[in-house]
Amino acid sequence: MKIYYFGKKRTDGRASGKLLLGGKGANLAEMCHMGIPVPPGFTISTEVCHLYQKHKSFPEELTTDIQNALSLLEEETGKKFGSRDSLPLLVSVRSGSPVSMPGMMDTILNLGLNDDTVQSLARETSGERFAWDSYRRFIQMFSDVVLGVPHHFFEETLTQLKKKENVLYDYELSAQALKILVAEYKKITLRETGSPFPESPLQQLHQAVEAVFKSWNNRRATTYRKIHAIPETLCTAVNVQSMVFGNLSANSGTGVVFTRNPSTGENLFYGEYLQNAQGEDVVAGIRTPKPISSLESDDSVNYLELKKIASKLEAHFHDMQDIEFTIEQGKLFILQTRSGKRTAPASLHIAMDSFKEGLIDRETALMRIDPEALPHLLANVFNADEIEQAANSGQLLATGLPAGPGAASGAIAFSADRAVEFANQGKPTILVRLETSPEDIAGMEKSRGILTARGGMTSHAAVVARGMNKPCVAGASDLVIHERELTLTIQGRAGIQLKEGDTISIDGYTGSVYAGELATSPSEIHRVFIEKSLPLENSPLAQKYYQLMQWVEEISTLGVRANADTGADASHARSYGAQGIGLARTEHMFFSPQKIMEVRKMILAETEEERAKALEQMLEFQEHNFYDLFREMDGFPVTIRLLDPPLHEFLPVEPSIINEIAEELGIPAETVLSRARSLREINPMLGHRGCRLGITFPEITAMQARAIFLAAHRAINDGYRVHPEIMIPLAGHWKEVQLQKKVIEDTYRELQKEKGLFIPFRTGSMIEVPRAALTSDEIAREADFFSFGTNDLTQMTLGFSRDDSGTFIPQYLEHKIYESDPFRTLDMEGVGSLIRIALDKARAVKPDIPTGICGEHGGDPKTIAFAVSLGMDYVSVSPFRVPVARLAAAQAKISLARNKNPA
Amino acid sequence: MKIYYFGKKRTDGRASGKLLLGGKGANLAEMCHMGIPVPPGFTISTEVCHLYQKHKSFPEELTTDIQNALSLLEEETGKKFGSRDSLPLLVSVRSGSPVSMPGMMDTILNLGLNDDTVQSLARETSGERFAWDSYRRFIQMFSDVVLGVPHHFFEETLTQLKKKENVLYDYELSAQALKILVAEYKKITLRETGSPFPESPLQQLHQAVEAVFKSWNNRRATTYRKIHAIPETLCTAVNVQSMVFGNLSANSGTGVVFTRNPSTGENLFYGEYLQNAQGEDVVAGIRTPKPISSLESDDSVNYLELKKIASKLEAHFHDMQDIEFTIEQGKLFILQTRSGKRTAPASLHIAMDSFKEGLIDRETALMRIDPEALPHLLANVFNADEIEQAANSGQLLATGLPAGPGAASGAIAFSADRAVEFANQGKPTILVRLETSPEDIAGMEKSRGILTARGGMTSHAAVVARGMNKPCVAGASDLVIHERELTLTIQGRAGIQLKEGDTISIDGYTGSVYAGELATSPSEIHRVFIEKSLPLENSPLAQKYYQLMQWVEEISTLGVRANADTGADASHARSYGAQGIGLARTEHMFFSPQKIMEVRKMILAETEEERAKALEQMLEFQEHNFYDLFREMDGFPVTIRLLDPPLHEFLPVEPSIINEIAEELGIPAETVLSRARSLREINPMLGHRGCRLGITFPEITAMQARAIFLAAHRAINDGYRVHPEIMIPLAGHWKEVQLQKKVIEDTYRELQKEKGLFIPFRTGSMIEVPRAALTSDEIAREADFFSFGTNDLTQMTLGFSRDDSGTFIPQYLEHKIYESDPFRTLDMEGVGSLIRIALDKARAVKPDIPTGICGEHGGDPKTIAFAVSLGMDYVSVSPFRVPVARLAAAQAKISLARNKNPA
Repeated sequence: MKIYYFGKKRTDGRASGKLLLGGKGANLAEMCHMGIPVPPGFTISTEVCHLYQKHKSFPEELTTDIQNALSLLEEETGKKFGSRDSLPLLVSVRSGSPVSMPGMMDTILNLGLNDDTVQSLARETSGERFAWDSYRRFIQMFSDVVLGVPHHFFEETLTQLKKKENVLYDYELSAQALKILVAEYKKITLRETGSPFPESPLQQLHQAVEAVFKSWNNRRATTYRKIHAIPETLCTAVNVQSMVFGNLSANSGTGVVFTRNPSTGENLFYGEYLQNAQGEDVVAGIRTPKPISSLESDDSVNYLELKKIASKLEAHFHDMQDIEFTIEQGKLFILQTRSGKRTAPASLHIAMDSFKEGLIDRETALMRIDPEALPHLLANVFNADEIEQAANSGQLLATGLPAGPGAASGAIAFSADRAVEFANQGKPTILVRLETSPEDIAGMEKSRGILTARGGMTSHAAVVARGMNKPCVAGASDLVIHERELTLTIQGRAGIQLKEGDTISIDGYTGSVYAGELATSPSEIHRVFIEKSLPLENSPLAQKYYQLMQWVEEISTLGVRANADTGADASHARSYGAQGIGLARTEHMFFSPQKIMEVRKMILAETEEERAKALEQMLEFQEHNFYDLFREMDGFPVTIRLLDPPLHEFLPVEPSIINEIAEELGIPAETVLSRARSLREINPMLGHRGCRLGITFPEITAMQARAIFLAAHRAINDGYRVHPEIMIPLAGHWKEVQLQKKVIEDTYRELQKEKGLFIPFRTGSMIEVPRAALTSDEIAREADFFSFGTNDLTQMTLGFSRDDSGTFIPQYLEHKIYESDPFRTLDMEGVGSLIRIALDKARAVKPDIPTGICGEHGGDPKTIAFAVSLGMDYVSVSPFRVPVARLAAAQAKISLARNKNPA
Repeated sequence: MKIYYFGKKRTDGRASGKLLLGGKGANLAEMCHMGIPVPPGFTISTEVCHLYQKHKSFPEELTTDIQNALSLLEEETGKKFGSRDSLPLLVSVRSGSPVSMPGMMDTILNLGLNDDTVQSLARETSGERFAWDSYRRFIQMFSDVVLGVPHHFFEETLTQLKKKENVLYDYELSAQALKILVAEYKKITLRETGSPFPESPLQQLHQAVEAVFKSWNNRRATTYRKIHAIPETLCTAVNVQSMVFGNLSANSGTGVVFTRNPSTGENLFYGEYLQNAQGEDVVAGIRTPKPISSLESDDSVNYLELKKIASKLEAHFHDMQDIEFTIEQGKLFILQTRSGKRTAPASLHIAMDSFKEGLIDRETALMRIDPEALPHLLANVFNADEIEQAANSGQLLATGLPAGPGAASGAIAFSADRAVEFANQGKPTILVRLETSPEDIAGMEKSRGILTARGGMTSHAAVVARGMNKPCVAGASDLVIHERELTLTIQGRAGIQLKEGDTISIDGYTGSVYAGELATSPSEIHRVFIEKSLPLENSPLAQKYYQLMQWVEEISTLGVRANADTGADASHARSYGAQGIGLARTEHMFFSPQKIMEVRKMILAETEEERAKALEQMLEFQEHNFYDLFREMDGFPVTIRLLDPPLHEFLPVEPSIINEIAEELGIPAETVLSRARSLREINPMLGHRGCRLGITFPEITAMQARAIFLAAHRAINDGYRVHPEIMIPLAGHWKEVQLQKKVIEDTYRELQKEKGLFIPFRTGSMIEVPRAALTSDEIAREADFFSFGTNDLTQMTLGFSRDDSGTFIPQYLEHKIYESDPFRTLDMEGVGSLIRIALDKARAVKPDIPTGICGEHGGDPKTIAFAVSLGMDYVSVSPFRVPVARLAAAQAKISLARNKNPA
């Protein structure tokens, strides 16, 4: 079946048929089944769209099918399509894909009007002005979206006519004037398209349906799909629905209601309406709509009826609904219902309330919250009164996508270099770019927030910002950046110009961009759990958050650890619920000026004694650092990765640094430079790093192991429960693991003799070289645990240098070679299949070997779902991604169970 | 059983027991079974050595076992070990591992002598001088190799004594003098070891056996094993054999015979002997041995007997034998037999003759020839008279390992830079280094030959030289290179000093290093097949080579193609038997100054027109180049890889080149430099290269496809049979292959319309990114063939940058993490398992998909065996490696069949 009828006569679809009918069509059908008053109509399924995309023409039988559906519609409504002598059937034509897609052709109203039917409409409704007004609106809309005649031609003609007629508003035009306007409009269309405006209602309908199908591939739609990772293959359905008119009389009207407040989540009937108006008029903003509560006094019968229907719909769809309605001469019609969009706090409130009210079960409530909303709940926000004031004073410059959590103000920097410069001067900075690329990373790190004019929710800027937990507004397309002049203007807002260094504010929560500075405060949840400045009992939001996280813990089987290198990071991570440290990068502990000098001394040592002395110093730093981690993670495992980066990262070739080192160490600059040069590599990513360092310099491994054991010993003596896990990086061969393990165990035995200590430690291997995955059975024999380093594993499996692939990955995404950036979401087919091989082989020899993912993929919900499906034990993520990962893990567990036992 | 007896009484072992008995012991046992007169004895098996290496002590029962074996030996010989009153049993103790290992402790003779038995020996043999001479030799040998007393102490004492006694040669010393010498020797041993020389024959035996076991791990032995890739786990056996004496009387003697001439391969009984002498005396070189033919007149009975035994042994072992014999008072004993070492031509002659004579079958003959010998047969040689003259005039400086084929003379360059400099001055150059590293590659390429003081047959220098087909002598350890002074001296040859720029000559065929220049000529086979200056009928060697290659063709199922980029390369490759081109690197075609400028223009183009113009010019070059390849490979496939390297390889940042480019193109140097800089990559290996270029610049792919089709069209019109195979590099995702294929096919269709051409081409994919191997089923759906690029696949699977891993691979080999350099022999466990996965998955969807290996592993016999075992279709190798690969492929096929159907 290609066409699904909905109405009182018959209803073919159901809510569950979204893939075939689109969201809109499926819900219309469902409402008909529920006995909700819906104007009847029919849905042309996505299947037809598929066929159209393939053959670029309609399937043969479609004409007959449409004819049949129209006949049934005529029968039910008692109107005739194209009728000259009775009330003509007019229809709306709307697209409706399985997921909401604002980028597509949306709506054509009043279809079926022509020079004949406009007469019968006027006659039968006794509304000549209404009929001609409907007709001119139809011609304009149809010409614009179906025939592609530019909008502004019609606007200009309308403006001229109003001037001539000496009126201010459209609705002041007389029927006579509207007739003239229709004639003018038709001339425009003839002039611009070369053909007269189509008079045949059937032809109009066919053309409109085709336009919807075509709009699936327009630029805005494809861009939207790319931004929101919506598959190309979904396609759209077309809904053809009989028109009802909110602008037919004083006892007509139209409006939108929500079953709960979408901003706050409060369980209160909410919305607004306009009397004697069509939906268009609400959007146009000429008349100000009234709050829905006013309808109670205006038309209490329909108000109560609407409220009842709203409750019924929420109860039926088990979620807060966003409902469009029209009252036609006192009769209420529901035009559309869908799950309402909501803010992050509202989403938490609504989900938890709905559970409490018994509307949904615990799992469903948990599934309702987007993990990516959590960082917004935790980050800084602009104070509400500041936002209002800024909006009122015209400071709101533009709105983009809310792409990174939090709110921030700072000086505009148009380049990463400038951002670094500003930041080094101690100036809070907002990096403003057309779009960002990997070269901007340093500038992004130094900025308070990131604003881009292009790109969506998964653009480089957005993903990196979320990874760094920084406020980001992406794709604020009204921004015009003049890179050469270093100024910023706003499309459609002449007179506004900002220079580099001027202050702006961005709200990563709403996507708003403001001129000037807005004050921020920490979020409610941050104040309760991190600052502890607000008692839990005073924050219903925090209580719900707490409840949610308790559920997460009950449901999830995947541990979530944090990547943390300092005591402060570890403490933060633990407050967010991290169950240990999955990755402590020992090299990060050396990046302070004093400490890095010791590393340099070690590298430049010319005698055994010099090297031993430098190592002794490094040992001291590390011991302190490890102690802090053990203390903060009392009772949880702390996974410490041995030194990973190539040594040249500690020894740059920049002359100023070389001279500084030479002076500090009292050796000639040439010596330093020559050693630094000799360490340079052509492909450092595949060079002398990871455990290759430990193999060639076992004394470094021994020093690190010693520091770990000494710190653990001290922590145990201080009463902490310590579980060190020593992790060997970049192993590719089991013998590497064996050799490094021997150094670690020898060190342990030495210390045992020396100090009589006892530490329950484990030694594991990173799996980040493809060879390690391919020979994981052999490595599993040597290793107590595995941690998949998916960053490096992706680099090597795909042969993509993360630092260099910025030059071609954008084009790869455009060509849809990869659906998403493989450094953000794990490449399941490639890298994922290697991980499967590794798990299978390792489990064959060591069935219970603990496995985890560390690296940025660990914080990506899709990758988490993959890890859960493979029965992995944990992921390790940045501290502020811990809540995201925890929720995503619980959701993945629920999805997995649902897929195994589909309801 | 730990001890294997051999003799007339009983013989426990067989020739097939080499792994347990070592080569020497197994053959001794076999000869006993054959009834050959062998002095009886016993072999302590490698199993005991294993136990010794593990526990550092002998197994408990060994003492009893040795005692039992000795008793049997006493019974058979009628002598008693340690006997004071009858002829004492004396034994030799020799190591004997499963493969020949010159680095180990070799031999102790006359063991069992002490102050008592020397008397009974003197008495029973009526040879007092003989007895004391035997004793002093034993003390010296035992003290040196078992007790570790430096050799020179004994030499000095001997020299002093000879002076005192006023004699010139050892054998002129009287029994009395020898008695004094024995006393002196014992004093030395006491002084140096703190213990008196062991008097107990049993203790002597135990200590000797232990010394053999220990010598398995001495530096020379482990180095030798490393050089020759002999597994550590083989261990050695120990042979204890009753002594026979060639120095007992005038009708005694000792010698070595070969069943055929090991230099020329002639089927003539060959060898030499010394009357009244022990083996030692032959080695010492004081007396000149006589040719074996003289024995016929000296002792015709034993001569005939020896000849008969030799024939019997050759017939039995089916190979040319190297036989040691001793005649003791007219009685002939065979001490050892083994397959004789031979030169490359001899190996060809002997194998082919042996087949002709019915001694061995065709497969065995083919297996007898080391594939690595073939390049020696094809390369230049020094003229025989030049060699003789040089040897006579003292020009022979040193001897190392014959590590690379051919002979060459040139100026000494002590650094790669100097070699390049000399070569650029047009001076033939020999690069002389302590050992080479990847940084020397450019210098190696520019040199005529390579000489190193360190390193073995698989050292960097050796492998690279063979890869480049250059003469190489490796590990000439007598060379002393003074890098600072830029001079070369020879250990033990004071007065000789060569400076940088002086001429030397190296013979990669013999390992000889000569001062001055020696004239070279092309090899016989080269003259017949490449130069065609010598008729085939005049060269028995070439005939045998031809026959061999015919067999190879009949047996082998693996195609051998060549990596060739020019018509000349292709022509050469075809003469060597290449069955097509497996890899034509299109970028190599641009490396001439004029051509590279066009590539630069293309890269620097600022307008579409400029780029199109540059591409048009590139197209012309390529079309000519491809035509040459098609012409030379008439009838065979030509696989052309699309542009592979990152663009920055064409655009260096060196100021001089930047200026040159700027001038040539008439654009500012800053523009060129800034573009060049923007192309730099952090990890170019994993950067914007391979088909990533083709995806982002499809016009390059289109240009290359066009050039291929136009060239093919022209070649077809000229009567050649053309089979172009277009190969997409660095694909990791099937969509890359699909997109590139589309560009190629669109180009073809365009040309079809334009020119009406028809070309039977195929489009395939390199498999060199791990992801491609992991998703090979999907790629196989798009690709007509696969070619495994094992260089890059190794880099990415192991995470080893080939250019950088020189800093740690040597240590990885030392630690035995990898048994051999994974860039030389394919890492079977890691990369190999990935290739298996790729083949399995691809064949599941396309069972007959042709697959090959291109890249340097393709020329490695072990890798070839792997390819054959996986049923791959071809390897592609450097033109001069084609014969090696062909022979190795046939051998692998035979081995595979033998393993499937073991005899």
